[in-house]
Amino acid sequence: MADIKVFPYERVDDLQLGGLRIIQNPSWFCFGADAVLLSDFASAGIKKGASVLDFCSGNGIIPILLSEKCEASQIVGLELLPEVAEMAKRSVTLNDLGELVKIKCGDLKDAAQMFGKSVFDAVTCNPPYREAGGGIENPDDILAVARHEIKCSLTDVISSAAQVLKPGGKLFMVHRPDRLADILCLMREYKIEPKRLRFVHPKAGATANMILAEGARGGRPKLFLEPPLYIYDDNGEYTKEVNEIYGRI
Amino acid sequence: MADIKVFPYERVDDLQLGGLRIIQNPSWFCFGADAVLLSDFASAGIKKGASVLDFCSGNGIIPILLSEKCEASQIVGLELLPEVAEMAKRSVTLNDLGELVKIKCGDLKDAAQMFGKSVFDAVTCNPPYREAGGGIENPDDILAVARHEIKCSLTDVISSAAQVLKPGGKLFMVHRPDRLADILCLMREYKIEPKRLRFVHPKAGATANMILAEGARGGRPKLFLEPPLYIYDDNGEYTKEVNEIYGRI
Repeated sequence: MADIKVFPYERVDDLQLGGLRIIQNPSWFCFGADAVLLSDFASAGIKKGASVLDFCSGNGIIPILLSEKCEASQIVGLELLPEVAEMAKRSVTLNDLGELVKIKCGDLKDAAQMFGKSVFDAVTCNPPYREAGGGIENPDDILAVARHEIKCSLTDVISSAAQVLKPGGKLFMVHRPDRLADILCLMREYKIEPKRLRFVHPKAGATANMILAEGARGGRPKLFLEPPLYIYDDNGEYTKEVNEIYGRI
Repeated sequence: MADIKVFPYERVDDLQLGGLRIIQNPSWFCFGADAVLLSDFASAGIKKGASVLDFCSGNGIIPILLSEKCEASQIVGLELLPEVAEMAKRSVTLNDLGELVKIKCGDLKDAAQMFGKSVFDAVTCNPPYREAGGGIENPDDILAVARHEIKCSLTDVISSAAQVLKPGGKLFMVHRPDRLADILCLMREYKIEPKRLRFVHPKAGATANMILAEGARGGRPKLFLEPPLYIYDDNGEYTKEVNEIYGRI
């Protein structure tokens, strides 16, 4: 294994999937269930040999999980913040994934200039969930940028995906249910047809607090709703399906 | 009680709600769970004294249920087919609801001409679910018109609702999940903001097979997702909530 620098303020977590590990900085942002669920949701729609671009890649969790969960031939993680992209690059090296996964530092609004138009089979994105505004966010604060739509709006994500996706290429997103109308309408506006939707509920009977959405560039209108995904069972334990997604079976 | 004609090919069903009854013709169409669930969903958003217009009113099930489930001051059922509207009128008389509920025969595309613009506080609609096309439908067949978008498309429903609703007035619809993107995007196109959404599942863990949607004319974007509604419990019995909605408590 290469000699990888890990700073004292960082931690290295075992992803319990094919021996994968990830470097995280808890004072910035640590990956959550949304990233794991999105990787799993997307992997079901990513074909062998596909080229994948991950927007808002952060610490690189989605490219790293996808390296094990699908048979893509190329996975690019695009991250705006240089410090975060640099940490993600070290995680790629730590996992010896340098051939398959590339981390690039840049703004997703420039993705078509960086990579070309109609070049990717799939785009994944776990974007900041909170709308900007109200003056509470500091645009220089890494945590704020990761959480709020300061540097990229939902429109930026979907319009940029539409540019870099091949015809028929797929966009996979995770978001909050209160943005469902925004996501579906923006996808349509940018000619990405919503094709598959899954609601994630803390438990059966509880309101969904996450949505997983797949759209296809230029696809025919026909939305397929998947069965709900419940995180916990009635005893407060992870459900069988969540354990399977996390590889804890 | 008035002397109401019921034809031999018709039946009179007890709605088990405030003594209400309805005349139905089984060879045309009998109301289903969708109408009951829509009435309940809508009643939560209809204020005392509101004026309500029900599109695609059929045998009048929704106006009749709403007469008991909310405190509207006026409920109009608009039905395209004269034979069906005539039957609905007899049900209104049968329930002695002639003061509150009026059944009108006409095309919902002419609703603004018939009733005026910006006049209703709420519009309800349980429309035909199946898209027209493929040549299998007979446009003169009452059953086909009730089931397929032959005489009214989703665009017709939503654009007509936008005309007759007051600013802030609410549209309540029930439909199939595969039309979710159509519903949300058409609402936005016609300035009816999606505000509330509920998925109906046959049971916990099963894919939703019905959606209930509320939009507000000119509303601010903020979609509220309600907890899922399960029809049956694990023993195959109606859930407590469904029994409550049906008034079987």
